[in-house]
Amino acid sequence: MKPTRSVHVVGGAITPFIGKFHPDFIWKGHPDFGKRENPTIEELIHTVAREAMADCGLSGDSIDRGVIGNFVGECFVNQGHLGAMLAGADPGFRGKPFHRVEGACASGGLALYSGIEAINSGADLVLVAGAEVQTTRNAKDGADFLARASHYAEEREIDPFTFPCMFARRTKAYMEKYGGGLEDLAPVVAKAYSNANRNPNAHMREVRMSTEQAACASETNPTFLTNPEYRDWLKVSDCSQVSDGACALILASDAGLEKLGHGEERSVEIVSYGVATGPLGRVEDYTSMGITEAAAQQAYLSAGWNATDVEIAEVHDCFSITEVLLTEALGFCAPGEGLRFAAAGETTLDGSIPVNTGGGLMAFGHPVGATGVKQAYEIFRQMNQLCGDYQLARAPHRGIAANMGGDDRTCVVTCYRKGS
Amino acid sequence: MKPTRSVHVVGGAITPFIGKFHPDFIWKGHPDFGKRENPTIEELIHTVAREAMADCGLSGDSIDRGVIGNFVGECFVNQGHLGAMLAGADPGFRGKPFHRVEGACASGGLALYSGIEAINSGADLVLVAGAEVQTTRNAKDGADFLARASHYAEEREIDPFTFPCMFARRTKAYMEKYGGGLEDLAPVVAKAYSNANRNPNAHMREVRMSTEQAACASETNPTFLTNPEYRDWLKVSDCSQVSDGACALILASDAGLEKLGHGEERSVEIVSYGVATGPLGRVEDYTSMGITEAAAQQAYLSAGWNATDVEIAEVHDCFSITEVLLTEALGFCAPGEGLRFAAAGETTLDGSIPVNTGGGLMAFGHPVGATGVKQAYEIFRQMNQLCGDYQLARAPHRGIAANMGGDDRTCVVTCYRKGS
Repeated sequence: MKPTRSVHVVGGAITPFIGKFHPDFIWKGHPDFGKRENPTIEELIHTVAREAMADCGLSGDSIDRGVIGNFVGECFVNQGHLGAMLAGADPGFRGKPFHRVEGACASGGLALYSGIEAINSGADLVLVAGAEVQTTRNAKDGADFLARASHYAEEREIDPFTFPCMFARRTKAYMEKYGGGLEDLAPVVAKAYSNANRNPNAHMREVRMSTEQAACASETNPTFLTNPEYRDWLKVSDCSQVSDGACALILASDAGLEKLGHGEERSVEIVSYGVATGPLGRVEDYTSMGITEAAAQQAYLSAGWNATDVEIAEVHDCFSITEVLLTEALGFCAPGEGLRFAAAGETTLDGSIPVNTGGGLMAFGHPVGATGVKQAYEIFRQMNQLCGDYQLARAPHRGIAANMGGDDRTCVVTCYRKGS
Repeated sequence: MKPTRSVHVVGGAITPFIGKFHPDFIWKGHPDFGKRENPTIEELIHTVAREAMADCGLSGDSIDRGVIGNFVGECFVNQGHLGAMLAGADPGFRGKPFHRVEGACASGGLALYSGIEAINSGADLVLVAGAEVQTTRNAKDGADFLARASHYAEEREIDPFTFPCMFARRTKAYMEKYGGGLEDLAPVVAKAYSNANRNPNAHMREVRMSTEQAACASETNPTFLTNPEYRDWLKVSDCSQVSDGACALILASDAGLEKLGHGEERSVEIVSYGVATGPLGRVEDYTSMGITEAAAQQAYLSAGWNATDVEIAEVHDCFSITEVLLTEALGFCAPGEGLRFAAAGETTLDGSIPVNTGGGLMAFGHPVGATGVKQAYEIFRQMNQLCGDYQLARAPHRGIAANMGGDDRTCVVTCYRKGS
């Protein structure tokens, strides 16, 4: 789909993504344990909303609409109705349309989708936010909450860790079809950590992970599934992080850019968007991402692009296999070629199509509702050379983001352009 | 706000709203207990999606988009990602944009809002659904889940039944400001049950409630709050029902009407919409609904209407006081006049502005996410003389719906017109 009015990303804000192994994360081994607590979801949401407006020099009065992506706040923090919580960030928001969208891990991308359609509908300045807090509960409870992204009644029982097991199933199916072993995903993992080590906001900014470490199960990198069929097809290092964090963007129409009165030099245009959904619990092929492909086709077609136009990509690497499958679904390489594409370095910071330059879900972190918003913000920042130690040598002009929910059941793909 | 392209409601479907006291509701005292179960949320969603398409003679292929309102499926049925569950209703939906929106009890209204903006953005036929299942858990657990519509960390503890207590607080404040007692709300309650007794889909279709019964606390109609300040300001009969149910609509652009090739004579236009949000946990005045007023002002202004143009209203009577406050917020009567307005019969089936003709949330029932969609469907059905025993004598031409979430924190108001 093409926006019916021009849509520009004009600024944004992000909190650090934190959780286990992040130096600022408060847990029982932290020196500040008992003295202070990790930020609440309200603090995260209000922080990024205010900082995104400050980043653009905007007051709350000037914002026409707000939308927030969140997956499962009802379970982790007993909180729904986050549109109204976002509306509490500034007195100028009172009485305006704010709401929450949800599509599992694609919730942030859906917020972007709703923000674009708000501009289509006449809004000039829209606040798009995403947030999640997940560190309030232990890993088993968390896995159960996250299983609400699957068809719970039919799919929950595949393993106590439902989603890790569903993607181990994909790894097994992929390797059996195309050849290879779990160790062949190590370059994807090592690249994620290497990028995150350059990113001050990354959950894993201080954790090193070599290709060798990522390749082998070990005491610190064990397999952990119970399902005997899939247990050997996933290690801890193949998983994205359980993170807390938030991200917000300001979208503007052409009239919004004029109201802004500045910053046009930073603005990045959203040239097209695609959204696709598949029936929950009815995955047809574990070796490809058909719903993501459908969303990408919509977005490419409307942009008039093909994959060779892309200079930077943010893809939803909820597990290592997912990044491989998404590079194929976005057409960067042929089906079955994703492992070789990664191993050849094509997706690294100096590769032909840098993928997940800030570390992706595996190492930047994955506060679920924030992820899709963060993807757009990363592309905005790379295009504006704001990425510090992980800035690409040549700022990209054309970028794509693919934010996927569940087992390839909802996908939002967006295409970005800056300059020619 | 005015739709940027014409938006028409062209058909829909609804399940019965069921729960305690409904003859079809399976519980341990039901003769079918152990033999069959109440419908799952998936069955409800798929049923209304398919029946809404059948109502319009449409196949799944012809639907461009889908959106579903649901409040708290993550808690009651362990299920999020309902956009993808809705997408499972028909093979023709595969690969299309479907998503879920949430704004507490205004979730259904937000689905309508997103559906309108999808038409604004170029879609021609949009499926708008709402659903909730709440009877899986006991009343105390349910009250805790529903408290996620409040600012949980700050407001949960007002009472084990958070929301009933928040509205008892409004009742007390209103009566202290304007005079009156809890018994003065009885005509609002009795009208709701009287209407529902004519409605085969109503949760309370077989439960009688006279004004006298509604006026007095009794063994079958007790007060139940714990908070001593508010305990005497709410009885069971003042509350909406804990129901399971779903509703779906088909929205069409002008081009969508042409694709439909028929049914134009039934179509009802959505002439305007207003959406307003207030900061969670920061209600300024318990004796009025400021956020609902803001949404109504947006909608009236865009429609070029005032309250005297309205011939039928669906308002969010989550509690008896709420219907009174909403008739004031929508301008049907002045602030403080709502009790007298109701007592004078102005809101009954043969009143000047019939309100909640099918029984409203108190007696039609309140499957949360379905409610906002049902409101639109009720107006569509009244305008098309499809309401059977509760059909208004003169089919209305102009109607309004106000779907409110939390303690007046999110409100969606929509204006409908059929004919001149």
